[in-house]
Amino acid sequence: MRILGIDPGTRITGYGLIEKIGNRLLHVDNGAIHTRTDAPLAERLKTIYDGLSRVIRDYGPASVAVERIFVAKNALSALKLGHARGVAMLAGVNAALPVAEYTAVEVKQAVVGYGKAAKPQVQQMVRVLLNLPEIAQEDASDALAVAICHAHCYHLKSLLI
Amino acid sequence: MRILGIDPGTRITGYGLIEKIGNRLLHVDNGAIHTRTDAPLAERLKTIYDGLSRVIRDYGPASVAVERIFVAKNALSALKLGHARGVAMLAGVNAALPVAEYTAVEVKQAVVGYGKAAKPQVQQMVRVLLNLPEIAQEDASDALAVAICHAHCYHLKSLLI
Repeated sequence: MRILGIDPGTRITGYGLIEKIGNRLLHVDNGAIHTRTDAPLAERLKTIYDGLSRVIRDYGPASVAVERIFVAKNALSALKLGHARGVAMLAGVNAALPVAEYTAVEVKQAVVGYGKAAKPQVQQMVRVLLNLPEIAQEDASDALAVAICHAHCYHLKSLLI
Repeated sequence: MRILGIDPGTRITGYGLIEKIGNRLLHVDNGAIHTRTDAPLAERLKTIYDGLSRVIRDYGPASVAVERIFVAKNALSALKLGHARGVAMLAGVNAALPVAEYTAVEVKQAVVGYGKAAKPQVQQMVRVLLNLPEIAQEDASDALAVAICHAHCYHLKSLLI
């Protein structure tokens, strides 16, 4: 099963694609969509939506995973993040894909085995688990981490049935 | 010129359509898109996006206006609002329409002539300006108010040229 993980942001939206074959996780691709900081917000949202829609079209994932946010530095940054996250989720659902949400603790637990792991540990484990030559760009690495979390949860669910 | 005003929210998204003919403002339609509170967020965002896209298709506005938000009660409500606002703006820009943003002060100034006007005053003035038989539903009324603000600003801009 192919999974698209997304780390949304109005400035940079990271994405990561992995393939789950049996118990193995394979890295497919990762990258980031950059928006023009001098462009109006509506245009930046379109850049994110179009970029993710293109990734979905090109790679045909079976599901999408996004980190669920509970806290933000402040209301303004939460509002900004919400815009990007909204259009990211819409790109998935408009392509008729299930969109799963995971908390940061769930992602860390799945990737590192410890819900309070530090960011560099998560990045390092993403690199190891996917056999990458080096740590991916920060936003792309976060996107790969949530994709890995989704792959693990699907696996657990299938064991329970 | 036909203007679509939007008051986005994850639970209820209000919309209001007005027509500006010369100096006159005519009410075209208003309403609200309700989302299922028990549905996953991604689905609710699709309901908002599809609903607004249908309104745009049915009424063919020339531009879209949304209230610009600076403050929210807290980071969580700001984040939620951001999701709805993001897909609302995307519905406009994906229909190749210009999307304008106005602050609450600008909207109140345009509708009531006083930037600190209370909500009931704004609702009452929307009713009077558009010759409505009664005050519109709250979210639809807010959407009509931002549409009126956009109509006024366009008017002012044309006077300046």
